[in-house]
Amino acid sequence: MADQASSLLAALAAVVGDAHVLTDQRDTASYVADWRGQYPGIARAVVRPASTAQVAEVVRLCAHAGVPLVPQGGNTGLVGGSTPDDSGREILISLGRMTAQRRVDPLGNSIILEAGCTILAAQQAAAACQRLFPLSLASEGSATIGGALSTNAGGEQVLRYGNTRDLTLGLEVVLADGRVLDALTTLRKDNTGYDLKQLFIGAEGTLGIVTAAAFKLFALPRRTVTGWVALADPQAAVELLAMLGDAVGERVTAFELLGREALDQVLAHGLDGMRDPLGGDYPWAVLFDVSEASASLDPSQAVEEVLAGALERGLAGDAALAASGRQAEEFWALREHVPEAQRLEGPSIKHDISVPITAIPAFIATADAALRRAVPGIRIVCFGHVGDGNLHYNQSKPAGMADAEFRARASEIHDIVHGIAASLDGSISAEHGIGRLKQQAFLRHKSPVALDLMTRVKTAFDPHGVFNPGRVLPLAGPT
Amino acid sequence: MADQASSLLAALAAVVGDAHVLTDQRDTASYVADWRGQYPGIARAVVRPASTAQVAEVVRLCAHAGVPLVPQGGNTGLVGGSTPDDSGREILISLGRMTAQRRVDPLGNSIILEAGCTILAAQQAAAACQRLFPLSLASEGSATIGGALSTNAGGEQVLRYGNTRDLTLGLEVVLADGRVLDALTTLRKDNTGYDLKQLFIGAEGTLGIVTAAAFKLFALPRRTVTGWVALADPQAAVELLAMLGDAVGERVTAFELLGREALDQVLAHGLDGMRDPLGGDYPWAVLFDVSEASASLDPSQAVEEVLAGALERGLAGDAALAASGRQAEEFWALREHVPEAQRLEGPSIKHDISVPITAIPAFIATADAALRRAVPGIRIVCFGHVGDGNLHYNQSKPAGMADAEFRARASEIHDIVHGIAASLDGSISAEHGIGRLKQQAFLRHKSPVALDLMTRVKTAFDPHGVFNPGRVLPLAGPT
Repeated sequence: MADQASSLLAALAAVVGDAHVLTDQRDTASYVADWRGQYPGIARAVVRPASTAQVAEVVRLCAHAGVPLVPQGGNTGLVGGSTPDDSGREILISLGRMTAQRRVDPLGNSIILEAGCTILAAQQAAAACQRLFPLSLASEGSATIGGALSTNAGGEQVLRYGNTRDLTLGLEVVLADGRVLDALTTLRKDNTGYDLKQLFIGAEGTLGIVTAAAFKLFALPRRTVTGWVALADPQAAVELLAMLGDAVGERVTAFELLGREALDQVLAHGLDGMRDPLGGDYPWAVLFDVSEASASLDPSQAVEEVLAGALERGLAGDAALAASGRQAEEFWALREHVPEAQRLEGPSIKHDISVPITAIPAFIATADAALRRAVPGIRIVCFGHVGDGNLHYNQSKPAGMADAEFRARASEIHDIVHGIAASLDGSISAEHGIGRLKQQAFLRHKSPVALDLMTRVKTAFDPHGVFNPGRVLPLAGPT
Repeated sequence: MADQASSLLAALAAVVGDAHVLTDQRDTASYVADWRGQYPGIARAVVRPASTAQVAEVVRLCAHAGVPLVPQGGNTGLVGGSTPDDSGREILISLGRMTAQRRVDPLGNSIILEAGCTILAAQQAAAACQRLFPLSLASEGSATIGGALSTNAGGEQVLRYGNTRDLTLGLEVVLADGRVLDALTTLRKDNTGYDLKQLFIGAEGTLGIVTAAAFKLFALPRRTVTGWVALADPQAAVELLAMLGDAVGERVTAFELLGREALDQVLAHGLDGMRDPLGGDYPWAVLFDVSEASASLDPSQAVEEVLAGALERGLAGDAALAASGRQAEEFWALREHVPEAQRLEGPSIKHDISVPITAIPAFIATADAALRRAVPGIRIVCFGHVGDGNLHYNQSKPAGMADAEFRARASEIHDIVHGIAASLDGSISAEHGIGRLKQQAFLRHKSPVALDLMTRVKTAFDPHGVFNPGRVLPLAGPT
């Protein structure tokens, strides 16, 4: 066995170079655990190929040896989907060296990037030719486009531009037997058979390894109107979104809800000297962007009219528009620091649910009440993307409760929240995926018919379980 | 055998009612051949279920009897994908009775419709609540949303709103064993496992029968600027599109190219008294719509500035903006009557190719030259959706050539056109699908890896070949 293992590592080193087969714990440490440290694992090795051909050869060697592969991008995931288990059997394959920008086509509004490019690098490459790559996440400096594809990442501009799936024109994928699917097209329309790329998007590395992708680019916004609005309740947010949509159409680029607790935590920790754009103790805030690609059209007045109408009707309590790009960044910093502030508050229990947009108020009311019954004093940190029906509905422990006591309630709290989301035709994972963290809830809430079809797809594409075994779908049979 | 056949029909009649199992040729005639009459077939019966439960039971009965099913919507397809073969073995299942509008949610911008609803009915249901259902096709009065989903239909507003796939939030599908996949969600974000609905969209009824779907709705445009521009060549069209995009962003809703021959044929047949919006003998025209959802913003001036700049630079020869909604309709009638005019000109050979947008000029130049070498005097009717890189690149026979002689060259002409599209990284079927018409070209131009994966999907979802056997993918093994 030891001989076989070392001969596999030697063969891998012959493909990617000695320097890119890491086995020393000091070298592998940053790969084998997720960044939150919730899934510490052990890898037989970390392999870092530099090209699609090398990825294909690595897969062939591992498949032949019966050694499972765990693909990893920027290791910014939240569900334990891209780190090895603790068996020491799995090999981690990092796409971090594949960062080529293969083609940028501003006239055709497309870009072809290798999987290891960060989202930030993709944004910069697009901006360099006056185009927008609209994917935008808090982790964009580290998160790669390969990871974004594998998790169908969402983020802050989904309302206008869609999630990663919607932005994708084509993919290059290494399959479980080492063959390469070249579907790296920039075509806008192609109805020739099944749209295979869709299966790899959001598959969390269980069906193939994405090595490159072609994305749509968009017109760069010429101006953005950023607003902060105080509201009495989530229903007012849903109505304000509809009013804005009626007034400025698809220009509503982001529409984020923040509950008082989320805002208080950010303000309490005084990060970067942040302050509330409005005064008073309003219970809910909305932060929105309305962006405009035309230099000769200005939506500001239409937005101001909507806000004036909302104030007059009593829908909004108060509102502020950012007077400068710098002020807009300050508004956004409040939103983006919520996760960090919550971390500083102590242990947190997190959810990433979605419901139909119109069901958001019912979800919040029902879940708030149920959690307060279950854990009196629990602090609910609710924020998210109202336009997508997607809430990061998190909890901090009640004042005075021991960390361990709160953590011990996690599973009960998850069940309450997921059950209420499901009862409103919602999802238990809107944008973070399943990985290992949410597998049990996934298996409980997904229909048996859907699970059966997914298992058939896995079996058809990866019959020997080479890719990310046990993530998303459970291992088949006894392990 | 006869007994088995009649007992199957009796069982089907017990499910859907005697009146909805059609076997008399007078009753089945409008179902068993496509509307162009290119695929006359024979069905053992035409079955017309009225509910998802009935569809499921029909599938179970036919699967059990080993009788293949051919699903059909409005029977407006162009590739022979929804009519029976001439064996008399297949049963045609028409979704035409399933026309319920299950839910319209203007606040959530979604609509749930059964498969037999026409596209026009979907547009009307959306408009009734001040929303836009953006799918728009010449055949929208007959074409159903089930057919649009199964072929991932495109149409005239793909540039702005995407194709049918992009508009789809959820599906309800009857599977090959009669189970029902309920993925009829209106969620904007749901990353729980593989996105199964994507496989059924564009599968041309080979993987399941779509019985209902949830679609996105959009803000209803408040005003539309429609223009007609005379151009010297297709390169000017690509550049004008980029200029418009820079000036008004995603508001460019349609951007259609028409070659002189297409325009001449429409004008020659004097349909509905149509006339050229411009004078002169310009070789190419572009017809565009710029639409605006905000009542307080008017993109007219920005559009006029673009056209003035294009005229000044010599990019455009002449241009006209429609002065009224009626005049805009007259502009559009010219575009929409191209297929009818070409039919009146005699036999035609048709293509539905796509290439990267920037490759459109090279495609047209190369294909024109190659066809004129192969068939001197051939008339090239080129029109299509520049913004999507999708051309309907059709041919009419040279003056004086016999119809049969021209038709005999079809396969050679297809090979030339498809070969040039493929050499430019294009597609041989941008929006019409494969069906039976394009199967040989599909098998020749698609990569063996992609074909293998598609076959695995077909085998995983429909192992016994119940749904539309031999369409898209060839029958496995000897038949």
